[in-house]
Amino acid sequence: MPLSEFDVISRFFSRCGARRADVVLGVGDDGAVLECPSGSQLVAAIDSLVEQVHFPAGSPARSIGHRALAVNLSDLAAMGAQPAWALLALALPAADEAWLTQFSAGLDQLAREHDVALVGGDTTGGKLCITVQTLGFVPRGAALTRDGGRPDDAVFVTGTLGDSAAGLMLEQSRLTVSDASQAQWLLDRFRYPTPRVALGIALRGLASACIDVSDGLLGDCGHLAQASGCGFSLDYEALPVSDALRAAVGEECARELALTGGEDYELCFTVPTVKLKEFSARCPASQFGWHRIGILTEQPGSSVRRGGSVMQVSHRGFDHFG
Amino acid sequence: MPLSEFDVISRFFSRCGARRADVVLGVGDDGAVLECPSGSQLVAAIDSLVEQVHFPAGSPARSIGHRALAVNLSDLAAMGAQPAWALLALALPAADEAWLTQFSAGLDQLAREHDVALVGGDTTGGKLCITVQTLGFVPRGAALTRDGGRPDDAVFVTGTLGDSAAGLMLEQSRLTVSDASQAQWLLDRFRYPTPRVALGIALRGLASACIDVSDGLLGDCGHLAQASGCGFSLDYEALPVSDALRAAVGEECARELALTGGEDYELCFTVPTVKLKEFSARCPASQFGWHRIGILTEQPGSSVRRGGSVMQVSHRGFDHFG
Repeated sequence: MPLSEFDVISRFFSRCGARRADVVLGVGDDGAVLECPSGSQLVAAIDSLVEQVHFPAGSPARSIGHRALAVNLSDLAAMGAQPAWALLALALPAADEAWLTQFSAGLDQLAREHDVALVGGDTTGGKLCITVQTLGFVPRGAALTRDGGRPDDAVFVTGTLGDSAAGLMLEQSRLTVSDASQAQWLLDRFRYPTPRVALGIALRGLASACIDVSDGLLGDCGHLAQASGCGFSLDYEALPVSDALRAAVGEECARELALTGGEDYELCFTVPTVKLKEFSARCPASQFGWHRIGILTEQPGSSVRRGGSVMQVSHRGFDHFG
Repeated sequence: MPLSEFDVISRFFSRCGARRADVVLGVGDDGAVLECPSGSQLVAAIDSLVEQVHFPAGSPARSIGHRALAVNLSDLAAMGAQPAWALLALALPAADEAWLTQFSAGLDQLAREHDVALVGGDTTGGKLCITVQTLGFVPRGAALTRDGGRPDDAVFVTGTLGDSAAGLMLEQSRLTVSDASQAQWLLDRFRYPTPRVALGIALRGLASACIDVSDGLLGDCGHLAQASGCGFSLDYEALPVSDALRAAVGEECARELALTGGEDYELCFTVPTVKLKEFSARCPASQFGWHRIGILTEQPGSSVRRGGSVMQVSHRGFDHFG
């Protein structure tokens, strides 16, 4: 007998994620009832993953569950928010138990790591499409936004860039990497991105602007700069690329992917020069894994400097319709 | 030149819905920043519409925009919540300007009617799938739930039932209705359902349980009864059916659709006998359009009584996988 919509919810999602005392009523009614902390502002984000747009058909279900939440937690991280709750809307061609077991396990594990409760959802038939909506909190007035950057602010990015783009190519069999452990590491960078929640919170009061890198560094840094009424200049040599990526695709292609590859889910943020010392002290690079990659400029537009010259840059990041 | 993802958001969604003073930061950043009222609990719901599951291909875009929000506001209504904010995740095969204009107009109009601000969203390529997430508020402890019903509580439903199921059949050309104005009325009951927000709020402190009727009355009343640890008995003759539905499909089929047709988005709720007088006084039927249709029973299970006998009932409401 096939699983009903109600079986799916009760078996796979009614106990998904962390237990939290502020969930008055969770999954199972028409809506969730939630207790907001006083003195805080609510931060809300929503993001979808669509099969064959955000992941290839046949991607592991556990990865899809992880990524559906991770991309949303990355949005909250970019706002400096502490995540609390998530809602899930799941369109599925069929209620496949093995798939649902893995999908919910991926979602559940990441949710617990970040103390996020799954408080509501909707399941329906349809082509595979996963929408997660996340809710979190910032102290009043402390949210990080895209628009606070000023000329001469230093530009930073977390982690290494381009790994996820290479991981996707591996997933799609468009790339082969001879070293099995490097291949797996790149694949996992695509399948299991790490939302930089702790750093987002630590950046409150320090970063002048912040955005998550989901559509490619050039494009997303461009959004930050534009919202801030600035341009930006990046230092090609300073772009953080992993040894695995360099080994897999070579130095030049690695940096190209670092500039334009999507799905990194790292944070790109700016820090005013007067706050750089405090930033380094309170958010050590050894702990948070950031790299300084450039500067905001008074002049609008983007440039990438390599040695003494300015490179032509062709891609502006991923666009779903353009 | 095709519209980019960012054009779509800025042209169609950045000024959608009501302006609200509690929106600190709306559409355009990684997340929205929102100010919650003190003394209240947050109520959150999420619901998707998928093409060819919830509406036929070629449904008017204005109706899809309206329904995507309406089905969510209906969930908030069932919780007794005052709606405040919405987020939209939109998967679209192409950024069609005419379609987006109509879709956003349908969403915008209903949002303004209920003072709801669209505060965030995500657009992506993919098969047409619309997920809306809504946030609203109830005074602490005042949320209506499914599980508070007790045996002998009276069962009520708003509006008339089954119209939307007939409207969908009209939309799909599976039904013809000779009277053009009745046909249009039924079609509009499918295309433009009315979320019963004001009644949901008025029912705080009066209704013992409440659910919205989205999957068919028998199924949804069954969910309420089951959550309340009860059964229910409905009075066939008391089921509210419209003249248009009766004229379109005949008396018997009209009541069958009233029992099992989906997509009504009316409220089904229970009131303890000791509160019936207060309920009638504070929520007059003339204003809120409800009908008393049955009773909760100690005995589990469902029955529909017609004259002196109990009918066999075959359908339990719509299930997307069963």
